[in-house]
Amino acid sequence: MDAIEEFFEKDLFARENGIELLHVGKGVAGVRMAIREKHLNSHGTVHGGAIFSLADCAFALASNSHGVPAAAINAHISYMKAAKSGSLRAEAREFALNPRLATYTVEVTDDAGEKIAIFQGMAYRKTPPRG
Amino acid sequence: MDAIEEFFEKDLFARENGIELLHVGKGVAGVRMAIREKHLNSHGTVHGGAIFSLADCAFALASNSHGVPAAAINAHISYMKAAKSGSLRAEAREFALNPRLATYTVEVTDDAGEKIAIFQGMAYRKTPPRG
Amino acid sequence: MDAIEEFFEKDLFARENGIELLHVGKGVAGVRMAIREKHLNSHGTVHGGAIFSLADCAFALASNSHGVPAAAINAHISYMKAAKSGSLRAEAREFALNPRLATYTVEVTDDAGEKIAIFQGMAYRKTPPRG
Amino acid sequence: MDAIEEFFEKDLFARENGIELLHVGKGVAGVRMAIREKHLNSHGTVHGGAIFSLADCAFALASNSHGVPAAAINAHISYMKAAKSGSLRAEAREFALNPRLATYTVEVTDDAGEKIAIFQGMAYRKTPPRG
Repeated sequence: MDAIEEFFEKDLFARENGIELLHVGKGVAGVRMAIREKHLNSHGTVHGGAIFSLADCAFALASNSHGVPAAAINAHISYMKAAKSGSLRAEAREFALNPRLATYTVEVTDDAGEKIAIFQGMAYRKTPPRG
Repeated sequence: MDAIEEFFEKDLFARENGIELLHVGKGVAGVRMAIREKHLNSHGTVHGGAIFSLADCAFALASNSHGVPAAAINAHISYMKAAKSGSLRAEAREFALNPRLATYTVEVTDDAGEKIAIFQGMAYRKTPPRG
Repeated sequence: MDAIEEFFEKDLFARENGIELLHVGKGVAGVRMAIREKHLNSHGTVHGGAIFSLADCAFALASNSHGVPAAAINAHISYMKAAKSGSLRAEAREFALNPRLATYTVEVTDDAGEKIAIFQGMAYRKTPPRG
Repeated sequence: MDAIEEFFEKDLFARENGIELLHVGKGVAGVRMAIREKHLNSHGTVHGGAIFSLADCAFALASNSHGVPAAAINAHISYMKAAKSGSLRAEAREFALNPRLATYTVEVTDDAGEKIAIFQGMAYRKTPPRG
């Protein structure tokens, strides 16, 4: 899994947001983000964009874990609870993997295990044609 | 429109990401983000989370423009083209407004007017009960 | 669970499409649809609308299983594989339940257990105010 | 536009649901459905699956209007108002068209022009490789 960890190291937006890798395997990944003041929105809770970004990193790791470059083509997020302090964790798992397309579900929870958001993403895989 | 501009001033995540207000009116809003190195992903293009965050700010402004607090409950984004440099612009417009729920479509384009992403968001409005 | 079964009996669109209840419990539900010629699209595979409708019925059952009327406010579906014959099954489970909002994930599979589609839905609950 | 009209003629699920073609052009399409008892859900309003199916037909027509076969890979719908009688109309328009992927927005309205739902769909295009 060295290649995928190196892949994540190069993600500058993840660095900027303090997103850390917890674990990554074939089709799965977990990441964590300690909530900072810079992540907050006008209501003083974690910005929807920050929650989405955390989930998106777990999705990118899981979808790129097979050694085939995969680019997000769309994503959907439902927010269930505002988050204010502590840290957030996102866990991605693969629903289905085709040669070209793959889908992932990501659950975002807080330190108390409360459900913050659920995310569904689809990736387009740059699978090389068989020779 | 002073209240809504003040609302946006308090958005620390928007500040952190260099997101600027272009215009805001009843049910519409436009924002802009100059692409910086910190917005990039492992592929060297703008992170899906950064594009989403830009669209989300336009959505938050448009949905809070009526003077009733509105919280995002879900959002969907489709990415059409990678963005690398220059700036991105997001324009939100209202599809429908109910007492409790409202929906918005946000289009994200680059400096050349190329379509980068389309976003659809739903907000829950904290409309006070009639007295 | 008599009330929820009766609720489903009144769903005329489910009847029209031959959608049958397999099981329903608090926050979960399973339904089945035998593929008929009338479910096919121009490509001769099951219409996206028919697959969505099957998933939507599982979502409606699961979200109405708590005895509080719940109306779908949005849904997202990703299609992974075309379906042609035999039957399709949709299994819904609750991700999170709030007083007003609840979210469900529905997986659609065919007779061979192949993953056909994944669906995510949000419902608005008409919870009576506390007296 | 004869080929696309013929394409729609072969859509058996559209026939079953009484969905009629209003117009179709490059990247746009309009369809209509007269509400029948068979379209209703347990609440006596038009089933979410029937509204989705109507929007999906407009999306299929618009995405297949360029002469390149296009298959839906995902879709998102937000419901704004229940519909009970009369007819529903869905109008699709293209947001962006790439060699492989294309995105569409579909608006669903009732006879009074009230906004019933908004739909966003992505299609995968089977563009032949350049020879």
